[in-house]
Amino acid sequence: MEALQGKLNKAIIYSNPGTRETEVVKLPIEAPGPGQVLVRMLYSGVCHTDYSFCTNSWKAPTTVPKGQIGGHEGVGEVVAHGPGVVNPPVGTKVGVKYVASACLACRYCLLGKEANCVAGKLSGAFHPGTFQQYLLAAANYVTTISDEVADDALPGLAPIMCAGITVYTALKNSDLRHGDWVAVSGGGGGLGHLAIQYAKAMGYKVVALDVPSKQAVCTEAGADFFVDVLGFTNSEELCKHVVKLTGGGARTVLACSSSNAAYAQAIHYLDQAGTLVCLGIPEGELKPIETASVALLVTRQLRIIGSKVGDRADAHECVRMAVNGAVKTHYQLRGMEELSDVFAEMEHGTIKGRVVIDLR
Amino acid sequence: MEALQGKLNKAIIYSNPGTRETEVVKLPIEAPGPGQVLVRMLYSGVCHTDYSFCTNSWKAPTTVPKGQIGGHEGVGEVVAHGPGVVNPPVGTKVGVKYVASACLACRYCLLGKEANCVAGKLSGAFHPGTFQQYLLAAANYVTTISDEVADDALPGLAPIMCAGITVYTALKNSDLRHGDWVAVSGGGGGLGHLAIQYAKAMGYKVVALDVPSKQAVCTEAGADFFVDVLGFTNSEELCKHVVKLTGGGARTVLACSSSNAAYAQAIHYLDQAGTLVCLGIPEGELKPIETASVALLVTRQLRIIGSKVGDRADAHECVRMAVNGAVKTHYQLRGMEELSDVFAEMEHGTIKGRVVIDLR
Amino acid sequence: MEALQGKLNKAIIYSNPGTRETEVVKLPIEAPGPGQVLVRMLYSGVCHTDYSFCTNSWKAPTTVPKGQIGGHEGVGEVVAHGPGVVNPPVGTKVGVKYVASACLACRYCLLGKEANCVAGKLSGAFHPGTFQQYLLAAANYVTTISDEVADDALPGLAPIMCAGITVYTALKNSDLRHGDWVAVSGGGGGLGHLAIQYAKAMGYKVVALDVPSKQAVCTEAGADFFVDVLGFTNSEELCKHVVKLTGGGARTVLACSSSNAAYAQAIHYLDQAGTLVCLGIPEGELKPIETASVALLVTRQLRIIGSKVGDRADAHECVRMAVNGAVKTHYQLRGMEELSDVFAEMEHGTIKGRVVIDLR
Amino acid sequence: MEALQGKLNKAIIYSNPGTRETEVVKLPIEAPGPGQVLVRMLYSGVCHTDYSFCTNSWKAPTTVPKGQIGGHEGVGEVVAHGPGVVNPPVGTKVGVKYVASACLACRYCLLGKEANCVAGKLSGAFHPGTFQQYLLAAANYVTTISDEVADDALPGLAPIMCAGITVYTALKNSDLRHGDWVAVSGGGGGLGHLAIQYAKAMGYKVVALDVPSKQAVCTEAGADFFVDVLGFTNSEELCKHVVKLTGGGARTVLACSSSNAAYAQAIHYLDQAGTLVCLGIPEGELKPIETASVALLVTRQLRIIGSKVGDRADAHECVRMAVNGAVKTHYQLRGMEELSDVFAEMEHGTIKGRVVIDLR
Repeated sequence: MEALQGKLNKAIIYSNPGTRETEVVKLPIEAPGPGQVLVRMLYSGVCHTDYSFCTNSWKAPTTVPKGQIGGHEGVGEVVAHGPGVVNPPVGTKVGVKYVASACLACRYCLLGKEANCVAGKLSGAFHPGTFQQYLLAAANYVTTISDEVADDALPGLAPIMCAGITVYTALKNSDLRHGDWVAVSGGGGGLGHLAIQYAKAMGYKVVALDVPSKQAVCTEAGADFFVDVLGFTNSEELCKHVVKLTGGGARTVLACSSSNAAYAQAIHYLDQAGTLVCLGIPEGELKPIETASVALLVTRQLRIIGSKVGDRADAHECVRMAVNGAVKTHYQLRGMEELSDVFAEMEHGTIKGRVVIDLR
Repeated sequence: MEALQGKLNKAIIYSNPGTRETEVVKLPIEAPGPGQVLVRMLYSGVCHTDYSFCTNSWKAPTTVPKGQIGGHEGVGEVVAHGPGVVNPPVGTKVGVKYVASACLACRYCLLGKEANCVAGKLSGAFHPGTFQQYLLAAANYVTTISDEVADDALPGLAPIMCAGITVYTALKNSDLRHGDWVAVSGGGGGLGHLAIQYAKAMGYKVVALDVPSKQAVCTEAGADFFVDVLGFTNSEELCKHVVKLTGGGARTVLACSSSNAAYAQAIHYLDQAGTLVCLGIPEGELKPIETASVALLVTRQLRIIGSKVGDRADAHECVRMAVNGAVKTHYQLRGMEELSDVFAEMEHGTIKGRVVIDLR
Repeated sequence: MEALQGKLNKAIIYSNPGTRETEVVKLPIEAPGPGQVLVRMLYSGVCHTDYSFCTNSWKAPTTVPKGQIGGHEGVGEVVAHGPGVVNPPVGTKVGVKYVASACLACRYCLLGKEANCVAGKLSGAFHPGTFQQYLLAAANYVTTISDEVADDALPGLAPIMCAGITVYTALKNSDLRHGDWVAVSGGGGGLGHLAIQYAKAMGYKVVALDVPSKQAVCTEAGADFFVDVLGFTNSEELCKHVVKLTGGGARTVLACSSSNAAYAQAIHYLDQAGTLVCLGIPEGELKPIETASVALLVTRQLRIIGSKVGDRADAHECVRMAVNGAVKTHYQLRGMEELSDVFAEMEHGTIKGRVVIDLR
Repeated sequence: MEALQGKLNKAIIYSNPGTRETEVVKLPIEAPGPGQVLVRMLYSGVCHTDYSFCTNSWKAPTTVPKGQIGGHEGVGEVVAHGPGVVNPPVGTKVGVKYVASACLACRYCLLGKEANCVAGKLSGAFHPGTFQQYLLAAANYVTTISDEVADDALPGLAPIMCAGITVYTALKNSDLRHGDWVAVSGGGGGLGHLAIQYAKAMGYKVVALDVPSKQAVCTEAGADFFVDVLGFTNSEELCKHVVKLTGGGARTVLACSSSNAAYAQAIHYLDQAGTLVCLGIPEGELKPIETASVALLVTRQLRIIGSKVGDRADAHECVRMAVNGAVKTHYQLRGMEELSDVFAEMEHGTIKGRVVIDLR
């Protein structure tokens, strides 16, 4: 901590929750408490969820407070230990996740569902997130990154800490076999382009669905087929096309798109005994998937799984894949002052891949 | 086959599909073909699905033809072998399932999802069912019943062949631990009272939900708690009550009730990271579960699984449990001539437990 | 901590490692550090492993030091929190396990194999164990016991914390189905009599093997059959007998006996595609299971699994079963001064069930 | 069958079991019975097991009879159907496995352990194998090969039907994660070079162990590291080297080598909580793995799994991987008359990869 004497913690705060306004401020650097490490953050991805929190788009009963430090997918380096902490050693590169900490003792933690922990803290939502230079983290909850990682690979790892874990966990829990077909709706977005890459690295065939402007991203990510969702006269035609491409329907659909229409279609291009994993959360009014009738679920033996990030093991495994080069984030590096602009671009749907904020 | 010379096959047919009309007729006994056994049927359960087929309640694109022999949960005894067949030996007691045969080679069969087999035959729907005295069955698809079974236990085994397999498979695939809470909607019905017993035998705690007239059946089946679904001013109160009884919500809900309202409630008394297994199929218009918003599924990490019967191993396992005395069907024995009456009673919801037709 | 002012911590130490000598001493009560709770211990079971450590029977490269506080299966009550700790609340009854703490971040912890944690502490071996009145424990690693537990059930829970977890985990990882046969070698011992009960509570059939003096314990625990291992002219006859009783061999053998001969027999009464779980560790020279030839393992597709206790979820689940009354430890309560005598009785093999030390 | 009028079935028989003598004979073509298809065989791999049967090297109680048609990994084309058979259609390319048929109804089949079927037939051992031009096969037990397969890919598929299934199933059941380390002993042999490829295609890192002459095969197959088993002064050095290369030991060892020494080493370079899959069967006297002491298995929580081929789903999946180009058999094509020579080369250990017999 002595080395940090006189330094300050530059952070981006939501200065007017309910709007896209953000502000870069300088705060004191806090000392890590028992069980904590202080992490010098280097990069943080910007997830659509950050936008939703800042602008209060989900109409949750409580909005994030003014002054909230957002961000929930970051990488940095351990610079100090709290009392009693020895691991990970100072100097270790680590990732910080959406789930900032979990008790590891409640019934959800015992099931490996740490995202539902009764005492969990969520980065960037009521708990200071990754949009800051010096972050206090639970020592046993950061994700250690192998020493072998190259420096220029670090910005690309930031989005892995949320988007990567989310799609990797969804695939891991889908009970797929090498060569099975995976459909990725919203394939060209932040989640989607990583979903395509993880699916390919794990040996699956991929059909990506998105608007035509996202075709290049999907193809570059490795999709076997791209389906232009605007290129059909109706949903039925689109579904038939996907069923044909996949020789009978996708074994798993990763719903990375948050559009209600995309969910409704997914049920119809899913193979029998297949799995739809819900990832993207539609904004606006709460609605069921309109095509998911009980009769269809039972007769076709479909599964619908709601999935939110993953646990510590999932994080470790998917970060290792990224360090090994199996997946590469498609990202653009932006400055801390640009976050409001980034939110505006998100609102207009013009971002390809992911935005990463340079916190150095 | 010589011993059967001069005998006829008494069978119940749907004499006017679209109504509840049935007729008992006498047909020639057919000789088993390659891969088949001839089974002298003794008892067949009556499932709500039989009613739905006979009365054409599901409004499926195609109705069962006039003369259809219904029934899909029966027990009998092997009396003759087709060419090349040696197992199960003549004299073996066997169960006949909803899935009458499956190719065991298509992609669904390879996944253990034989109910979705591309070449599967369904008993009692376009393929002659268990409402007859002499039935042709696939030798490798009947379920062998242990010699140790007592004769008076046989009628109770008939409903196991569909209702039992259905609820056992649902529990087996729910990833539960001893002591976990299972909620059974429609607990007093044919599926439900078996679901309660299987759940108890597998070590789970059970809260059963049904109308007050079904309380005794649920309690006798072993439910730890009974919830009178008519005893609340609104759904929210009911859900709160179940959440309280189960200390936070059921880990798994077996939706044995086919009411849309019961499905809508289930989502709200399911614990986080819990599983709703859809079993009962609502009649009428196809509808999603109205409370199952994508936002809720994702944030609470819920799973919804459509489940239709089980495979050969599931059948073997749940029949063995019944033979071992772990579960007992609550049934009334009725004659072959009474099937139309039984369908009428089903329509009025006055049947407790299951009806079994005596075919001897 | 104020309430403890002036009190001392009565503890049993190994006063002469390599012999059975123990001594009761009074030590200061230590204040819990970050992440720790102070537990007022009430009861501790005595495991054969304690004997092995105290007498240095395993000839491990390092022996436990003089003054070691042994014991690794205990129950007590949280009486104070270290800095930053809020859970479990003061007053909560908790169990203390063989694994005293684990980092929850290393590759073994991430796999749920906390017993292999690179930074794990083992109670009673180089780390102070449960043979003391005031124990420092990792707050996130104690096992919370439901408030519903009766006071007189507490002594019986102590052995669950090692023996119970060990056998429960072994059964949980054996991929068994309700009604499958489990064989328990050493069925009348501390591990064995709990193995029988857990197996029965989980729905399995059990054949217990042991010397004749242990028959009553095995039968009382619920074994379907008891096999007197001294009652056969040779191993082959014994194996044939078990194969006959189980209708083809046990699906799983829990090797609770630490005799090499028992292991050699187990391979021959295991069903094809069955699982042998190694639990008891033979003393003396390191030896393989002499009958476990590679040819036999491959042609019969057998699995041999080395299993050592379980993880936090396993502990939670098996304690819950005990609190629910599904299993009951057969134990005798002894004083702290009697531990050396207990070790002597262990050496002579005269103990039935488990010894529990009263620490109050 | 008319098209086959006047044709004969050229087959290789073991003319003097106990020696390497084989003979090519001409036999009548048999018509397929109920449930059977007639397959025009095109290629058959030669497995070390064929050698062991022909030369009676395993000293099994019964030797294969004079006139036995060996071979158990072949590909061909369906040319005729037995009575009642409709699938797979005439003209379909299919694979024939070691397990020629299984009842699909016994307890082992229900567990997916068809290789232990009570009524199973094994190709090339007491049941006519794949070293013939016209083979009778169970219609529901052949493995359908996608139409998309190129003709010149067919010879390479033959070894997939035994060696491929064996190693793929071993990997599938090892509970590995992308990026985990797999060690393959005997990496340059028939099993080994496929094990390396399957492991790489499934995302694992591979260290291959073999004698120096097999290095090129291992490297070409994709091994990340090759370890020359002759290059160490003792086993301990070798094991330390593998542990170092893998950063702590292999998560899984596929024991493709049938040498007892290789098995003994494997236990010592296996990571904690790791899995040793036994595949190669040592010839000569039956022996346990000498280093696999119970104490080590328990304290390190190791698993040893005996694995013999796989089931229908495993076959389907691993053939699909080969058709997709994920793995390529390293093979040499030989004539039917050369089988005795091939056996001689096997005896001298001079074969790299696999031998495939051209049956056209």
